[in-house]
Amino acid sequence: MYIILVYDIALDQNGAKVLRHVFKICKKYLSHVQKSVFEGELTKSQLQKLTTELDKWVRNDKDSIIIFKNRNKNWLDKKFIGLDMSDETSNFF
Amino acid sequence: MYIILVYDIALDQNGAKVLRHVFKICKKYLSHVQKSVFEGELTKSQLQKLTTELDKWVRNDKDSIIIFKNRNKNWLDKKFIGLDMSDETSNFF
Repeated sequence: MYIILVYDIALDQNGAKVLRHVFKICKKYLSHVQKSVFEGELTKSQLQKLTTELDKWVRNDKDSIIIFKNRNKNWLDKKFIGLDMSDETSNFF
Repeated sequence: MYIILVYDIALDQNGAKVLRHVFKICKKYLSHVQKSVFEGELTKSQLQKLTTELDKWVRNDKDSIIIFKNRNKNWLDKKFIGLDMSDETSNFF
């Protein structure tokens, strides 16, 4: 299935550390297309591993991750307005 | 078609003004689900109007908007980790 993941990590005291770990975990499984946006094709078990790893870092009372699951990439089109930041931001988190 | 829109606006000198306008335009057409994420069902002509309005504000050399177009919402599932910020952030931009 095709995944679009967007995160919003609260940048309070521990926020920078959480953000670094969340970014690294996402980069392991998906492509980085915009500051807090990742996308890519994952199997069910890969998605399960990704969410289990993220659960360890996400603070349920202040951070938010949305995972859009699309059964088939062919039904999904993507359009950019302005910059296409796909993976040139790979060291940016 | 079902739309997921994510923006990344550069917060330089004019950035706050651009962000305010981009947020207001997106709110007219879509639901706000996370800090820089909107989603909703749009017709082709509504999407055309939305992108035309956004084009007036987006600075092509520094801002980025990604629009994911999904032919059918039924093929799309959504999962939250942590906070579900759907529309409680409507005054936040």
